[in-house]
Amino acid sequence: MPPATASPPQDHDVRDNVLPPPPPPLREVRAGRKRSAAEEARTLIANTDVASLGTLSEDGIPWASLVAFADLEDGATALMVSTLAEHGRNLERDPRASLMIAHEPRELDQLAHGRVTIAGRAEAVEGEERERAREAYLAAIPAANAYERFGDFRIWVLRPERVRWVGGYGRMDDVEVPDLSSAEPDPTAPGAQRAVDHLNDDHADSLLAMARTLGGYPDALAARCTSIDRYGLRLAIETPRGHAPSRVGFAEPVDEPAGLRAATVELARLARS
Amino acid sequence: MPPATASPPQDHDVRDNVLPPPPPPLREVRAGRKRSAAEEARTLIANTDVASLGTLSEDGIPWASLVAFADLEDGATALMVSTLAEHGRNLERDPRASLMIAHEPRELDQLAHGRVTIAGRAEAVEGEERERAREAYLAAIPAANAYERFGDFRIWVLRPERVRWVGGYGRMDDVEVPDLSSAEPDPTAPGAQRAVDHLNDDHADSLLAMARTLGGYPDALAARCTSIDRYGLRLAIETPRGHAPSRVGFAEPVDEPAGLRAATVELARLARS
Repeated sequence: MPPATASPPQDHDVRDNVLPPPPPPLREVRAGRKRSAAEEARTLIANTDVASLGTLSEDGIPWASLVAFADLEDGATALMVSTLAEHGRNLERDPRASLMIAHEPRELDQLAHGRVTIAGRAEAVEGEERERAREAYLAAIPAANAYERFGDFRIWVLRPERVRWVGGYGRMDDVEVPDLSSAEPDPTAPGAQRAVDHLNDDHADSLLAMARTLGGYPDALAARCTSIDRYGLRLAIETPRGHAPSRVGFAEPVDEPAGLRAATVELARLARS
Repeated sequence: MPPATASPPQDHDVRDNVLPPPPPPLREVRAGRKRSAAEEARTLIANTDVASLGTLSEDGIPWASLVAFADLEDGATALMVSTLAEHGRNLERDPRASLMIAHEPRELDQLAHGRVTIAGRAEAVEGEERERAREAYLAAIPAANAYERFGDFRIWVLRPERVRWVGGYGRMDDVEVPDLSSAEPDPTAPGAQRAVDHLNDDHADSLLAMARTLGGYPDALAARCTSIDRYGLRLAIETPRGHAPSRVGFAEPVDEPAGLRAATVELARLARS
Protein backbone atom coordinates (compact mmCIF):
# COMPACT_ATOMS: atom_id res chain seq x y z
CA MET A 1 0.00 0.00 0.00
CA PRO A 2 1.37 3.44 -0.89
CA PRO A 3 2.06 5.85 1.98
CA ALA A 4 -0.80 8.06 3.13
CA THR A 5 0.47 11.22 1.51
CA ALA A 6 -2.35 11.80 -0.97
CA SER A 7 -4.74 14.59 -0.05
CA PRO A 8 -8.46 14.35 -0.77
CA PRO A 9 -9.57 16.08 -3.98
CA GLN A 10 -10.76 19.54 -2.95
CA ASP A 11 -9.39 22.08 -5.35
CA HIS A 12 -11.22 25.41 -5.72
CA ASP A 13 -11.68 25.04 -1.97
CA VAL A 14 -10.73 28.32 -0.35
CA ARG A 15 -11.90 27.11 3.06
CA ASP A 16 -9.48 24.22 3.50
CA ASN A 17 -8.13 26.02 6.52
CA VAL A 18 -11.43 26.45 8.34
CA LEU A 19 -13.60 23.44 7.37
CA PRO A 20 -13.35 20.56 9.86
CA PRO A 21 -11.09 18.21 7.91
CA PRO A 22 -12.56 14.89 6.80
CA PRO A 23 -10.50 11.78 7.64
CA PRO A 24 -7.60 11.60 5.18
CA PRO A 25 -7.32 8.80 2.62
CA LEU A 26 -5.07 5.88 3.62
CA ARG A 27 -3.81 5.20 0.12
CA GLU A 28 -3.35 7.02 -3.16
CA VAL A 29 -6.51 8.54 -4.63
CA ARG A 30 -6.97 8.06 -8.37
CA ALA A 31 -9.05 11.21 -8.70
CA GLY A 32 -8.14 11.90 -12.31
CA ARG A 33 -9.06 15.09 -14.06
CA LYS A 34 -11.88 17.42 -13.00
CA ARG A 35 -14.07 19.75 -14.99
CA SER A 36 -12.57 23.24 -15.01
CA ALA A 37 -14.66 26.12 -13.70
CA ALA A 38 -15.22 27.14 -17.36
CA GLU A 39 -16.45 23.63 -18.20
CA GLU A 40 -18.72 23.67 -15.15
CA ALA A 41 -20.17 27.00 -16.23
CA ARG A 42 -20.63 25.96 -19.89
CA THR A 43 -22.29 22.72 -18.74
CA LEU A 44 -24.77 24.65 -16.58
CA ILE A 45 -25.61 27.02 -19.44
CA ALA A 46 -26.05 24.18 -21.94
CA ASN A 47 -28.28 22.06 -19.70
CA THR A 48 -30.60 24.64 -18.16
CA ASP A 49 -33.27 26.87 -19.67
CA VAL A 50 -34.58 28.84 -16.71
CA ALA A 51 -32.51 31.31 -14.72
CA SER A 52 -32.67 34.37 -12.55
CA LEU A 53 -32.08 37.73 -14.20
CA GLY A 54 -30.66 40.72 -12.35
CA THR A 55 -31.62 44.11 -13.82
CA LEU A 56 -31.61 47.65 -12.48
CA SER A 57 -34.99 49.11 -11.52
CA GLU A 58 -35.87 52.76 -11.91
CA ASP A 59 -35.65 53.29 -8.13
CA GLY A 60 -32.11 51.87 -8.11
CA ILE A 61 -33.00 48.48 -6.66
CA PRO A 62 -31.27 45.49 -8.30
CA TRP A 63 -34.29 43.49 -9.47
CA ALA A 64 -34.18 39.67 -9.51
CA SER A 65 -36.72 37.96 -11.76
CA LEU A 66 -37.35 34.59 -13.39
CA VAL A 67 -36.57 34.21 -17.10
CA ALA A 68 -36.18 31.50 -19.68
CA PHE A 69 -33.03 31.69 -21.77
CA ALA A 70 -31.26 29.99 -24.65
CA ASP A 71 -27.60 29.01 -24.87
CA LEU A 72 -25.89 30.74 -27.82
CA GLU A 73 -22.92 28.39 -27.34
CA ASP A 74 -20.22 31.05 -27.03
CA GLY A 75 -20.95 32.20 -23.48
CA ALA A 76 -23.71 34.56 -24.64
CA THR A 77 -27.35 33.81 -23.91
CA ALA A 78 -30.60 34.87 -25.60
CA LEU A 79 -33.60 36.24 -23.71
CA MET A 80 -37.12 37.09 -24.87
CA VAL A 81 -38.58 39.57 -22.45
CA SER A 82 -41.82 41.55 -22.37
CA THR A 83 -41.42 45.31 -22.48
CA LEU A 84 -44.45 45.43 -20.15
CA ALA A 85 -42.61 43.56 -17.38
CA GLU A 86 -40.34 45.30 -14.89
CA HIS A 87 -37.21 43.45 -16.05
CA GLY A 88 -38.01 44.38 -19.67
CA ARG A 89 -38.44 48.06 -18.84
CA ASN A 90 -35.23 47.88 -16.81
CA LEU A 91 -33.21 46.54 -19.74
CA GLU A 92 -34.56 49.28 -22.03
CA ARG A 93 -33.25 51.85 -19.56
CA ASP A 94 -29.98 50.21 -18.51
CA PRO A 95 -28.38 47.25 -20.32
CA ARG A 96 -26.32 46.10 -17.35
CA ALA A 97 -27.58 42.72 -16.23
CA SER A 98 -26.62 39.33 -14.89
CA LEU A 99 -27.98 35.84 -15.29
CA MET A 100 -27.71 33.31 -12.46
CA ILE A 101 -28.03 29.73 -13.66
CA ALA A 102 -28.28 27.03 -11.01
CA HIS A 103 -28.22 23.27 -11.18
CA GLU A 104 -31.49 21.96 -9.80
CA PRO A 105 -30.42 19.10 -7.66
CA ARG A 106 -32.44 16.09 -6.67
CA GLU A 107 -31.00 16.43 -3.20
CA LEU A 108 -32.29 19.00 -0.76
CA ASP A 109 -29.35 21.29 -0.15
CA GLN A 110 -29.17 23.34 -3.32
CA LEU A 111 -26.34 25.47 -1.91
CA ALA A 112 -24.10 22.40 -2.10
CA HIS A 113 -24.53 22.36 -5.88
CA GLY A 114 -23.28 24.37 -8.83
CA ARG A 115 -24.38 27.76 -10.10
CA VAL A 116 -22.87 30.48 -12.23
CA THR A 117 -23.49 34.20 -12.47
CA ILE A 118 -22.84 35.72 -15.87
CA ALA A 119 -22.68 39.48 -15.66
CA GLY A 120 -22.48 41.82 -18.61
CA ARG A 121 -24.61 43.91 -20.92
CA ALA A 122 -27.78 42.99 -22.75
CA GLU A 123 -28.18 44.14 -26.34
CA ALA A 124 -31.50 44.34 -28.19
CA VAL A 125 -30.10 42.62 -31.27
CA GLU A 126 -31.32 43.29 -34.80
CA GLY A 127 -31.09 41.69 -38.24
CA GLU A 128 -29.29 38.40 -38.66
CA GLU A 129 -28.10 38.33 -35.10
CA ARG A 130 -31.67 38.76 -33.87
CA GLU A 131 -32.83 35.93 -36.11
CA ARG A 132 -30.13 33.61 -34.79
CA ALA A 133 -30.98 34.47 -31.16
CA ARG A 134 -34.72 34.15 -31.85
CA GLU A 135 -34.32 30.71 -33.43
CA ALA A 136 -32.19 29.49 -30.54
CA TYR A 137 -34.74 30.80 -28.06
CA LEU A 138 -37.76 29.25 -29.78
CA ALA A 139 -35.91 25.93 -30.06
CA ALA A 140 -35.01 25.97 -26.35
CA ILE A 141 -38.34 27.32 -25.07
CA PRO A 142 -41.19 25.78 -27.09
CA ALA A 143 -43.84 27.69 -25.08
CA ALA A 144 -42.41 30.92 -26.51
CA ASN A 145 -43.91 30.07 -29.88
CA ALA A 146 -47.31 30.84 -28.32
CA TYR A 147 -46.45 34.31 -27.05
CA GLU A 148 -43.74 35.49 -29.40
CA ARG A 149 -46.29 37.11 -31.73
CA PHE A 150 -47.63 39.41 -29.00
CA GLY A 151 -46.02 42.71 -29.86
CA ASP A 152 -44.49 43.31 -26.45
CA PHE A 153 -41.66 40.76 -26.57
CA ARG A 154 -38.15 41.77 -27.39
CA ILE A 155 -35.07 39.64 -28.05
CA TRP A 156 -31.94 40.40 -26.05
CA VAL A 157 -28.48 38.91 -26.13
CA LEU A 158 -26.57 39.02 -22.86
CA ARG A 159 -22.84 39.29 -23.53
CA PRO A 160 -20.65 38.13 -20.65
CA GLU A 161 -18.10 40.46 -19.08
CA ARG A 162 -17.58 38.85 -15.67
CA VAL A 163 -18.33 35.24 -14.80
CA ARG A 164 -18.32 33.68 -11.35
CA TRP A 165 -18.84 29.98 -10.79
CA VAL A 166 -19.74 28.52 -7.39
CA GLY A 167 -19.65 24.75 -7.14
CA GLY A 168 -20.92 24.41 -3.58
CA TYR A 169 -19.64 25.28 -0.13
CA GLY A 170 -16.19 26.76 -0.54
CA ARG A 171 -15.81 25.65 -4.18
CA MET A 172 -15.72 28.68 -6.45
CA ASP A 173 -13.70 30.36 -9.14
CA ASP A 174 -13.77 33.24 -11.59
CA VAL A 175 -14.07 32.21 -15.22
CA GLU A 176 -12.39 34.24 -17.95
CA VAL A 177 -14.79 35.05 -20.77
CA PRO A 178 -12.61 33.51 -23.53
CA ASP A 179 -12.38 30.30 -21.45
CA LEU A 180 -16.16 30.22 -21.12
CA SER A 181 -16.60 30.74 -24.85
CA SER A 182 -14.26 27.92 -25.76
CA ALA A 183 -15.17 25.41 -23.06
CA GLU A 184 -17.09 22.30 -24.09
CA PRO A 185 -20.24 21.41 -22.12
CA ASP A 186 -19.99 17.99 -20.52
CA PRO A 187 -21.75 15.68 -23.02
CA THR A 188 -22.72 13.29 -20.22
CA ALA A 189 -24.58 15.92 -18.14
CA PRO A 190 -28.11 15.20 -19.44
CA GLY A 191 -27.96 11.59 -18.23
CA ALA A 192 -25.83 12.15 -15.13
CA GLN A 193 -28.59 12.16 -12.51
CA ARG A 194 -30.03 8.93 -13.90
CA ALA A 195 -26.56 7.35 -13.80
CA VAL A 196 -26.06 8.47 -10.17
CA ASP A 197 -29.43 7.02 -9.16
CA HIS A 198 -28.69 3.74 -10.94
CA LEU A 199 -25.29 3.37 -9.28
CA ASN A 200 -26.71 4.06 -5.81
CA ASP A 201 -29.77 1.84 -6.29
CA ASP A 202 -28.15 -1.16 -7.93
CA HIS A 203 -24.37 -1.05 -7.56
CA ALA A 204 -23.55 -0.22 -3.94
CA ASP A 205 -20.98 -3.05 -3.96
CA SER A 206 -19.09 -1.55 -6.91
CA LEU A 207 -19.10 1.89 -5.29
CA LEU A 208 -17.73 0.39 -2.08
CA ALA A 209 -14.98 -1.39 -4.04
CA MET A 210 -14.09 1.92 -5.75
CA ALA A 211 -14.02 3.76 -2.41
CA ARG A 212 -11.71 1.11 -0.87
CA THR A 213 -9.20 1.02 -3.71
CA LEU A 214 -9.14 3.88 -6.23
CA GLY A 215 -10.90 6.26 -3.81
CA GLY A 216 -8.18 5.87 -1.15
CA TYR A 217 -10.28 4.58 1.76
CA PRO A 218 -9.53 0.86 2.37
CA ASP A 219 -11.51 1.18 5.63
CA ALA A 220 -14.69 2.30 3.82
CA LEU A 221 -17.87 0.80 5.26
CA ALA A 222 -20.21 2.19 2.61
CA ALA A 223 -20.09 4.60 -0.32
CA ARG A 224 -22.64 6.61 -2.27
CA CYS A 225 -22.14 8.34 -5.59
CA THR A 226 -22.95 12.06 -5.25
CA SER A 227 -22.24 13.13 -8.82
CA ILE A 228 -20.83 11.87 -12.07
CA ASP A 229 -19.30 13.64 -15.02
CA ARG A 230 -17.24 12.89 -18.13
CA TYR A 231 -14.03 12.59 -16.09
CA GLY A 232 -15.16 10.47 -13.14
CA LEU A 233 -17.43 10.30 -10.15
CA ARG A 234 -17.60 11.74 -6.68
CA LEU A 235 -18.20 9.53 -3.67
CA ALA A 236 -19.48 10.15 -0.15
CA ILE A 237 -17.68 7.54 1.95
CA GLU A 238 -18.50 6.28 5.41
CA THR A 239 -15.50 5.09 7.45
CA PRO A 240 -14.94 4.28 11.13
CA ARG A 241 -12.97 7.54 11.19
CA GLY A 242 -15.90 9.65 9.94
CA HIS A 243 -17.38 10.67 6.62
CA ALA A 244 -15.15 11.67 3.73
CA PRO A 245 -15.65 12.83 0.16
CA SER A 246 -13.51 11.34 -2.55
CA ARG A 247 -13.28 11.21 -6.29
CA VAL A 248 -12.47 8.44 -8.72
CA GLY A 249 -11.41 9.26 -12.27
CA PHE A 250 -12.22 7.34 -15.44
CA ALA A 251 -9.30 6.00 -17.47
CA GLU A 252 -10.34 8.28 -20.37
CA PRO A 253 -12.77 11.23 -20.58
CA VAL A 254 -16.20 10.15 -21.80
CA ASP A 255 -16.99 11.84 -25.11
CA GLU A 256 -20.58 10.86 -25.71
CA PRO A 257 -23.76 10.86 -23.62
CA ALA A 258 -24.08 7.07 -23.70
CA GLY A 259 -20.47 6.50 -22.62
CA LEU A 260 -20.94 6.73 -18.84
CA ARG A 261 -22.05 3.14 -18.53
CA ALA A 262 -18.98 1.57 -20.14
CA ALA A 263 -16.63 3.92 -18.27
CA THR A 264 -18.24 3.05 -14.93
CA VAL A 265 -18.21 -0.69 -15.60
CA GLU A 266 -14.49 -0.43 -16.43
CA LEU A 267 -13.88 1.51 -13.22
CA ALA A 268 -15.71 -1.12 -11.15
CA ARG A 269 -13.62 -3.84 -12.80
CA LEU A 270 -10.41 -1.94 -12.06
CA ALA A 271 -11.49 -1.42 -8.44
CA ARG A 272 -11.89 -5.16 -7.95
CA SER A 273 -8.70 -6.23 -9.74
CA MET B 1 -78.62 24.09 -17.86
CA PRO B 2 -77.77 27.73 -17.05
CA PRO B 3 -76.93 29.97 -19.98
CA ALA B 4 -73.31 30.07 -21.09
CA THR B 5 -72.55 33.41 -19.53
CA ALA B 6 -69.91 32.32 -17.07
CA SER B 7 -66.38 33.27 -18.04
CA PRO B 8 -63.44 31.01 -17.30
CA PRO B 9 -61.52 31.95 -14.16
CA GLN B 10 -58.63 34.12 -15.30
CA ASP B 11 -58.33 37.09 -13.03
CA HIS B 12 -54.97 38.84 -12.78
CA ASP B 13 -54.86 38.12 -16.52
CA VAL B 14 -53.76 41.28 -18.27
CA ARG B 15 -53.51 39.47 -21.60
CA ASP B 16 -57.13 38.44 -21.99
CA ASN B 17 -57.25 40.59 -25.09
CA VAL B 18 -54.33 38.95 -26.87
CA LEU B 19 -54.25 35.31 -25.77
CA PRO B 20 -56.13 32.98 -28.10
CA PRO B 21 -59.28 32.39 -26.05
CA PRO B 22 -59.93 28.87 -24.81
CA PRO B 23 -63.38 27.41 -25.56
CA PRO B 24 -65.86 28.98 -23.12
CA PRO B 25 -67.63 26.95 -20.45
CA LEU B 26 -71.13 25.76 -21.37
CA ARG B 27 -72.54 26.06 -17.86
CA GLU B 28 -71.86 27.94 -14.69
CA VAL B 29 -68.37 27.48 -13.23
CA ARG B 30 -68.24 26.98 -9.45
CA ALA B 31 -64.74 28.41 -9.25
CA GLY B 32 -65.06 29.65 -5.68
CA ARG B 33 -62.49 31.85 -4.05
CA LYS B 34 -58.88 32.13 -5.14
CA ARG B 35 -55.74 32.91 -3.24
CA SER B 36 -55.00 36.62 -3.38
CA ALA B 37 -51.67 37.77 -4.79
CA ALA B 38 -50.57 38.45 -1.19
CA GLU B 39 -51.52 34.88 -0.17
CA GLU B 40 -49.68 33.52 -3.19
CA ALA B 41 -46.58 35.51 -2.23
CA ARG B 42 -46.73 34.51 1.46
CA THR B 43 -47.21 30.88 0.49
CA LEU B 44 -44.11 30.98 -1.72
CA ILE B 45 -42.04 32.58 1.04
CA ALA B 46 -43.24 30.10 3.66
CA ASN B 47 -42.62 26.99 1.54
CA THR B 48 -39.28 27.74 -0.08
CA ASP B 49 -35.79 28.13 1.37
CA VAL B 50 -33.64 28.90 -1.66
CA ALA B 51 -33.99 32.02 -3.76
CA SER B 52 -32.16 34.35 -6.06
CA LEU B 53 -30.72 37.53 -4.57
CA GLY B 54 -30.23 40.72 -6.55
CA THR B 55 -27.52 43.04 -5.21
CA LEU B 56 -25.55 45.90 -6.69
CA SER B 57 -21.95 45.15 -7.65
CA GLU B 58 -19.15 47.68 -7.41
CA ASP B 59 -19.08 48.10 -11.20
CA GLY B 60 -22.81 48.92 -11.21
CA ILE B 61 -24.01 45.57 -12.51
CA PRO B 62 -27.10 44.15 -10.78
CA TRP B 63 -25.72 40.84 -9.50
CA ALA B 64 -27.97 37.77 -9.29
CA SER B 65 -26.80 35.00 -6.95
CA LEU B 66 -28.15 31.94 -5.16
CA VAL B 67 -28.96 32.21 -1.46
CA ALA B 68 -30.79 30.31 1.22
CA PHE B 69 -33.25 32.34 3.26
CA ALA B 70 -35.63 32.05 6.19
CA ASP B 71 -39.20 33.33 6.41
CA LEU B 72 -39.60 35.82 9.27
CA GLU B 73 -43.38 35.55 8.86
CA ASP B 74 -44.11 39.24 8.39
CA GLY B 75 -42.91 39.64 4.81
CA ALA B 76 -39.30 40.08 5.89
CA THR B 77 -36.69 37.39 5.24
CA ALA B 78 -33.40 36.49 6.92
CA LEU B 79 -30.19 35.85 5.02
CA MET B 80 -26.79 34.59 6.19
CA VAL B 81 -24.22 35.73 3.70
CA SER B 82 -20.44 35.52 3.57
CA THR B 83 -18.64 38.85 3.54
CA LEU B 84 -16.11 37.14 1.25
CA ALA B 85 -18.71 36.53 -1.47
CA GLU B 86 -19.63 39.15 -4.07
CA HIS B 87 -23.25 39.44 -2.87
CA GLY B 88 -22.02 39.90 0.72
CA ARG B 89 -19.60 42.65 -0.27
CA ASN B 90 -22.37 44.25 -2.32
CA LEU B 91 -24.76 44.38 0.65
CA GLU B 92 -22.08 45.96 2.83
CA ARG B 93 -21.72 48.74 0.25
CA ASP B 94 -25.38 49.19 -0.77
CA PRO B 95 -28.34 47.72 1.14
CA ARG B 96 -30.73 47.80 -1.82
CA ALA B 97 -31.61 44.26 -2.79
CA SER B 98 -34.33 41.96 -4.00
CA LEU B 99 -35.15 38.32 -3.43
CA MET B 100 -36.84 36.27 -6.16
CA ILE B 101 -38.58 33.19 -4.81
CA ALA B 102 -39.92 30.71 -7.34
CA HIS B 103 -42.10 27.67 -7.01
CA GLU B 104 -40.14 24.70 -8.28
CA PRO B 105 -42.67 22.84 -10.33
CA ARG B 106 -42.66 19.18 -11.15
CA GLU B 107 -43.73 20.11 -14.66
CA LEU B 108 -41.28 21.40 -17.19
CA ASP B 109 -42.43 24.92 -17.93
CA GLN B 110 -41.38 26.85 -14.85
CA LEU B 111 -42.54 30.14 -16.38
CA ALA B 112 -46.13 28.90 -16.09
CA HIS B 113 -45.73 28.75 -12.29
CA GLY B 114 -45.60 31.25 -9.46
CA ARG B 115 -42.75 33.47 -8.32
CA VAL B 116 -42.44 36.65 -6.35
CA THR B 117 -39.82 39.40 -6.25
CA ILE B 118 -39.47 41.15 -2.91
CA ALA B 119 -37.49 44.34 -3.28
CA GLY B 120 -36.30 46.50 -0.44
CA ARG B 121 -33.32 47.12 1.80
CA ALA B 122 -31.20 44.65 3.72
CA GLU B 123 -30.17 45.52 7.26
CA ALA B 124 -27.29 43.91 9.14
CA VAL B 125 -29.38 43.39 12.27
CA GLU B 126 -27.95 43.39 15.80
CA GLY B 127 -28.99 42.38 19.30
CA GLU B 128 -32.33 40.67 19.83
CA GLU B 129 -33.40 41.11 16.25
CA ARG B 130 -30.23 39.41 15.06
CA GLU B 131 -30.83 36.53 17.43
CA ARG B 132 -34.39 36.09 16.16
CA ALA B 133 -33.25 36.17 12.52
CA ARG B 134 -30.34 33.83 13.27
CA GLU B 135 -32.57 31.28 14.97
CA ALA B 136 -35.08 31.36 12.11
CA TYR B 137 -32.25 30.90 9.61
CA LEU B 138 -30.61 28.00 11.44
CA ALA B 139 -34.00 26.31 11.81
CA ALA B 140 -34.77 26.70 8.10
CA ILE B 141 -31.26 25.88 6.81
CA PRO B 142 -29.76 23.10 8.93
CA ALA B 143 -26.54 23.09 6.89
CA ALA B 144 -25.87 26.62 8.16
CA ASN B 145 -25.07 25.21 11.60
CA ALA B 146 -21.87 23.86 10.05
CA TYR B 147 -20.62 27.15 8.61
CA GLU B 148 -22.17 29.76 10.88
CA ARG B 149 -19.14 29.76 13.20
CA PHE B 150 -16.77 30.76 10.38
CA GLY B 151 -16.19 34.41 11.08
CA ASP B 152 -17.16 35.63 7.62
CA PHE B 153 -20.95 35.14 7.80
CA ARG B 154 -23.28 37.99 8.55
CA ILE B 155 -27.00 37.99 9.25
CA TRP B 156 -29.18 40.30 7.17
CA VAL B 157 -32.88 41.03 7.28
CA LEU B 158 -34.44 42.06 3.98
CA ARG B 159 -37.36 44.43 4.61
CA PRO B 160 -39.84 44.57 1.74
CA GLU B 161 -40.66 47.86 0.04
CA ARG B 162 -42.05 46.68 -3.32
CA VAL B 163 -43.47 43.24 -4.01
CA ARG B 164 -44.41 41.83 -7.40
CA TRP B 165 -46.08 38.46 -7.80
CA VAL B 166 -46.20 36.62 -11.12
CA GLY B 167 -48.43 33.54 -11.23
CA GLY B 168 -47.59 32.39 -14.74
CA TYR B 169 -48.21 33.71 -18.23
CA GLY B 170 -50.22 36.92 -17.92
CA ARG B 171 -51.12 36.35 -14.26
CA MET B 172 -49.46 38.97 -12.10
CA ASP B 173 -50.13 41.63 -9.53
CA ASP B 174 -48.43 44.06 -7.21
CA VAL B 175 -48.69 43.19 -3.53
CA GLU B 176 -48.90 45.92 -0.91
CA VAL B 177 -46.42 45.36 1.91
CA PRO B 178 -49.07 45.42 4.70
CA ASP B 179 -51.08 42.82 2.76
CA LEU B 180 -48.02 40.61 2.48
CA SER B 181 -47.31 40.95 6.19
CA SER B 182 -50.84 39.98 7.19
CA ALA B 183 -51.52 37.27 4.59
CA GLU B 184 -51.66 33.67 5.79
CA PRO B 185 -49.60 31.09 3.90
CA ASP B 186 -51.76 28.34 2.43
CA PRO B 187 -51.57 25.54 5.06
CA THR B 188 -52.13 22.90 2.35
CA ALA B 189 -49.16 23.95 0.20
CA PRO B 190 -46.61 21.43 1.58
CA GLY B 191 -48.79 18.47 0.50
CA ALA B 192 -50.24 20.01 -2.64
CA GLN B 193 -47.99 18.36 -5.22
CA ARG B 194 -48.61 14.95 -3.66
CA ALA B 195 -52.36 15.57 -3.78
CA VAL B 196 -52.18 16.63 -7.44
CA ASP B 197 -50.21 13.51 -8.35
CA HIS B 198 -52.64 11.29 -6.45
CA LEU B 199 -55.68 12.82 -8.15
CA ASN B 200 -54.16 12.44 -11.61
CA ASP B 201 -52.87 8.94 -10.99
CA ASP B 202 -55.88 7.41 -9.25
CA HIS B 203 -58.96 9.61 -9.69
CA ALA B 204 -59.21 10.62 -13.36
CA ASP B 205 -62.92 9.72 -13.24
CA SER B 206 -63.62 12.14 -10.39
CA LEU B 207 -61.68 14.92 -12.14
CA LEU B 208 -63.70 14.32 -15.31
CA ALA B 209 -66.96 14.49 -13.32
CA MET B 210 -65.81 17.78 -11.75
CA ALA B 211 -64.89 19.20 -15.15
CA ARG B 212 -68.30 18.27 -16.64
CA THR B 213 -70.38 19.73 -13.82
CA LEU B 214 -68.79 22.21 -11.40
CA GLY B 215 -66.04 23.08 -13.89
CA GLY B 216 -68.52 24.20 -16.57
CA TYR B 217 -67.53 21.83 -19.39
CA PRO B 218 -70.24 19.15 -19.88
CA ASP B 219 -68.47 18.18 -23.12
CA ALA B 220 -65.20 17.40 -21.31
CA LEU B 221 -63.43 14.31 -22.66
CA ALA B 222 -60.68 14.24 -20.03
CA ALA B 223 -59.40 16.41 -17.21
CA ARG B 224 -56.14 16.70 -15.31
CA CYS B 225 -55.55 18.55 -12.06
CA THR B 226 -52.81 21.15 -12.54
CA SER B 227 -52.76 22.59 -9.02
CA ILE B 228 -54.60 22.45 -5.74
CA ASP B 229 -54.83 24.92 -2.89
CA ARG B 230 -56.91 25.56 0.22
CA TYR B 231 -59.76 27.04 -1.85
CA GLY B 232 -60.04 24.54 -4.69
CA LEU B 233 -58.29 22.99 -7.64
CA ARG B 234 -57.38 23.94 -11.17
CA LEU B 235 -58.15 21.65 -14.06
CA ALA B 236 -56.78 21.33 -17.59
CA ILE B 237 -59.76 20.11 -19.60
CA GLU B 238 -59.82 18.47 -23.01
CA THR B 239 -62.98 19.10 -25.02
CA PRO B 240 -63.95 18.58 -28.70
CA ARG B 241 -63.73 22.40 -28.89
CA GLY B 242 -60.13 22.54 -27.71
CA HIS B 243 -58.28 22.69 -24.40
CA ALA B 244 -59.55 24.86 -21.58
CA PRO B 245 -58.43 25.68 -18.05
CA SER B 246 -61.04 25.76 -15.33
CA ARG B 247 -61.26 25.93 -11.59
CA VAL B 248 -63.47 24.19 -9.07
CA GLY B 249 -63.85 25.62 -5.58
CA PHE B 250 -64.22 23.72 -2.32
CA ALA B 251 -67.37 24.33 -0.27
CA GLU B 252 -65.20 25.74 2.55
CA PRO B 253 -61.53 26.82 2.66
CA VAL B 254 -59.28 24.05 3.97
CA ASP B 255 -57.64 25.15 7.21
CA GLU B 256 -55.22 22.34 7.92
CA PRO B 257 -52.60 20.47 5.89
CA ALA B 258 -54.47 17.16 6.10
CA GLY B 259 -57.78 18.67 4.99
CA LEU B 260 -57.30 18.43 1.22
CA ARG B 261 -58.41 14.83 1.06
CA ALA B 262 -61.82 15.32 2.69
CA ALA B 263 -62.47 18.50 0.70
CA THR B 264 -61.65 16.75 -2.58
CA VAL B 265 -63.77 13.70 -1.76
CA GLU B 266 -66.68 16.04 -0.99
CA LEU B 267 -66.15 17.85 -4.29
CA ALA B 268 -66.14 14.58 -6.22
CA ARG B 269 -69.38 13.56 -4.48
CA LEU B 270 -70.95 16.92 -5.34
CA ALA B 271 -69.83 16.60 -8.96
CA ARG B 272 -71.61 13.25 -9.28
CA SER B 273 -74.84 14.24 -7.47
